[in-house]
Amino acid sequence: MNASIRNTLLGGLAVGLVGSAIAADLTPEEQIQTRQAGYRFMSWNMSKIKANLDGDYRQPRVEAAANAIAGIANSGMGVLFAPGTEQDIGEVKTRVRPELFTNQEEVAEVAVAFIEAANSMAETAALGSEDEVRAAFGKLGQSCKGCHDKFRKD
Amino acid sequence: MNASIRNTLLGGLAVGLVGSAIAADLTPEEQIQTRQAGYRFMSWNMSKIKANLDGDYRQPRVEAAANAIAGIANSGMGVLFAPGTEQDIGEVKTRVRPELFTNQEEVAEVAVAFIEAANSMAETAALGSEDEVRAAFGKLGQSCKGCHDKFRKD
Repeated sequence: MNASIRNTLLGGLAVGLVGSAIAADLTPEEQIQTRQAGYRFMSWNMSKIKANLDGDYRQPRVEAAANAIAGIANSGMGVLFAPGTEQDIGEVKTRVRPELFTNQEEVAEVAVAFIEAANSMAETAALGSEDEVRAAFGKLGQSCKGCHDKFRKD
Repeated sequence: MNASIRNTLLGGLAVGLVGSAIAADLTPEEQIQTRQAGYRFMSWNMSKIKANLDGDYRQPRVEAAANAIAGIANSGMGVLFAPGTEQDIGEVKTRVRPELFTNQEEVAEVAVAFIEAANSMAETAALGSEDEVRAAFGKLGQSCKGCHDKFRKD
């Protein structure tokens, strides 16, 4: 585990848990919507990488998609999980499990794994072979699933 | 205007306009939701950069936010404006103006300006002074506005 990422992330989580100037600019509803926006946009880019690996591989497109994912992954989304965002707020639904707000150590583990996999994916997409990209993509998918299994309902 | 970006973008727009394997994976509703997710996430990161420039400037946070914006900006969002996404679809609302689907040349201009400003912002955030970041941020904001004024309702 990368100590620097881990410290940054734990800092971000702590900021998220006590609230911050940045998170405070967003209502709880907006925090849920913004984190979901990040996940939705990453999901689209994951599907683009998969389509390239399953069909006609075009490196620039894979690199662009990987950079979008890495950019979002490293943007400090922890602050979007501030108190008040643990459950649905009216029409704004969330699938987050309550454990995400109480189990900081385990959240940090899956989050660090995800950020590292996203960074590795971006580096591999820029410089690696299609087979290396396939392997990095598999690991990235596993890191997504690692969080979903623990902290997302359904 | 950067010829390479421009060609890539026009290619992307053309793909968007005729539909593509990637766009086809998403329903028109999902295309609208995905493009809005990208804009929402970029907007949050713009607000973080602004908060840093208005208050306590922390370069790593500004760089991370700028990288998220650049990653999204370069991800080929043109394909998310395929036919069928010109107007509201049930509860999925869009503020896009019809002109975006007919005025490709002008769309390419504002889109290229935006991508160039986003890339410049990311480079400046990594290597530049706070004053240089302020200037790059101003230009990036103008490039957002350049598209909103022409192709977004309200």
